Amino acid sequence: VVWLVLVFGSSPLGRAERDPLPSWNEGPSKTSIMDFVARVTQEGGPDYVAPIDRIATFDHDGTLWAEQPMYFQIMFAMDRVKAMAPKHPDWKNNQPFKAVLDRDIKALAALGETGFLKIIPLTHTGMTTFEFSKFVVDWIATARHPRFDRPYTELVYQPMLELLAYLRANGFKTFIVSGGGVEFMRVFTERLYGIPPEQIVGSSGVVRYQLRSGAKPVLIKDGKIEFVDDGPGKPVGINRFIGRRPIFAFGNSDGDQQMLEWTAAGTGARFMGLVHHTDAEREWAYDRKSFFGRLDKAWDEAVKRGWTVTNMKTEWKKVFAFEP
Amino acid sequence: VVWLVLVFGSSPLGRAERDPLPSWNEGPSKTSIMDFVARVTQEGGPDYVAPIDRIATFDHDGTLWAEQPMYFQIMFAMDRVKAMAPKHPDWKNNQPFKAVLDRDIKALAALGETGFLKIIPLTHTGMTTFEFSKFVVDWIATARHPRFDRPYTELVYQPMLELLAYLRANGFKTFIVSGGGVEFMRVFTERLYGIPPEQIVGSSGVVRYQLRSGAKPVLIKDGKIEFVDDGPGKPVGINRFIGRRPIFAFGNSDGDQQMLEWTAAGTGARFMGLVHHTDAEREWAYDRKSFFGRLDKAWDEAVKRGWTVTNMKTEWKKVFAFEP
Repeated sequence: VVWLVLVFGSSPLGRAERDPLPSWNEGPSKTSIMDFVARVTQEGGPDYVAPIDRIATFDHDGTLWAEQPMYFQIMFAMDRVKAMAPKHPDWKNNQPFKAVLDRDIKALAALGETGFLKIIPLTHTGMTTFEFSKFVVDWIATARHPRFDRPYTELVYQPMLELLAYLRANGFKTFIVSGGGVEFMRVFTERLYGIPPEQIVGSSGVVRYQLRSGAKPVLIKDGKIEFVDDGPGKPVGINRFIGRRPIFAFGNSDGDQQMLEWTAAGTGARFMGLVHHTDAEREWAYDRKSFFGRLDKAWDEAVKRGWTVTNMKTEWKKVFAFEP
Repeated sequence: VVWLVLVFGSSPLGRAERDPLPSWNEGPSKTSIMDFVARVTQEGGPDYVAPIDRIATFDHDGTLWAEQPMYFQIMFAMDRVKAMAPKHPDWKNNQPFKAVLDRDIKALAALGETGFLKIIPLTHTGMTTFEFSKFVVDWIATARHPRFDRPYTELVYQPMLELLAYLRANGFKTFIVSGGGVEFMRVFTERLYGIPPEQIVGSSGVVRYQLRSGAKPVLIKDGKIEFVDDGPGKPVGINRFIGRRPIFAFGNSDGDQQMLEWTAAGTGARFMGLVHHTDAEREWAYDRKSFFGRLDKAWDEAVKRGWTVTNMKTEWKKVFAFEP
């Protein structure tokens, strides 16, 4: 016979007295988040939502971790191009490879989408899913962010880690819904955010099942883009992968506008939030004119509709965990 | 202060003594299932698998519920055609509509895939996801199976419900991976199997985000097939939606062969199972020659590789819960 005795008391460390969001300053965002969670979890209250329907979706780049000077997945692709370059001597004189090898971010950005559309398939396809994930495993363990000289995994936002944990502690199921590649993110998102692979929604390329010699099955990443989980693709991705409408969504750019609209269009209590990057000192300051993570139309809609816009500079006590 | 006292004792109702699979006869399948679960959950044992990696995938039609005289989703489509028929008087004389309206299953089957390829888009697209799910909600609540004259939802296999619950009680996360339409299944799979929408993987059509008048966002189901989650599509679907390789997979037909191969190809302990429909009295008896749920190549591979093949007639004490 096993006796198990649990005691809950009103000690000084009691749950009600601990701040679940210590890296958030008291302010409009923290208030609206905590008010929302209190309302949807209050049994018998007018805004109560059953745990099974407490779906929260988060954009990734610029919402959970940084996205400057460019999406980290592109930094990964650039590093892959560099590793592959010895076998391609002509790249030294051809764009976009020259820009990549020179680490000339400006020249690469000037090439716009066409540059990325060459680099991404080259570094993300023509291999098995297993081979690709090994490249990501190695890269994420060793690569360092050019400005902070730290692993990219340290560029996650401490306030958002607290928010994810706070939502989960209140019965929410948390998802990432990102324009980034799903096979790229899944390598590290469980460890970074406590979100398992099946709760990561992202862009993807066509994958093909093949029996290799010795009848070993593999999945080959083909060259074709299958799904772009950005902008109007986000509600589509949510519908496809989650099959339920979120009641809580957080993004940071125009690519998140439709996810927030889709979230807002449901019945009952809703939370829509945007991170506004306003802190050039601790992180970056950018919005309407940025190439990566442009926040323009979604901002206007957020203001018009009273969605939460989080001013990083004034509302986040800490941006990164490594800050003193 | 709240005192909460829990007592676990070796009572006659103690956990170890209750049979978790009462509808399974003692036999090779029950033994191999229980042996597998014991091995992967034994901490410190050579086959131990951490809970996060205990992924179990189940085919739907013919594995969790019946699939005769044809897939129930096709029965749904036929009923939709009937409901739409008054506006299409020409259907009375044109195939495949004539066969559908006459409920002539043989004629419909004789038309093969071409018939279904006309009926499915017609009844599954050109509407919003919300409108479609309402059709399914209404149908599943009212339609009755032609042979058993019971709601289709009663045609679930009692032994498989027990198996799902048993796996979850042992830390597994259970998924459906079906050739059926994901938007069709998600309407009722949570209620029937305790599996939430985001753990349902299936075939899908293209869906498009649209702002309707008054800026109300909707998702429109377009006419194009996007993904067929069958055969070699199953490992692809598993990779896309789950992002992890299952350690346990159960199917019943050639459409599940690649899912089982993909499961088998991982390292560590693995369970691969097939339901063999051998009971014409309580359910149906069919395998190599069946149009729906053909079990031929996958059966041969299962025998060759020592996978579990469950003989429904001898191994299932009960097929459906409604049996006396």
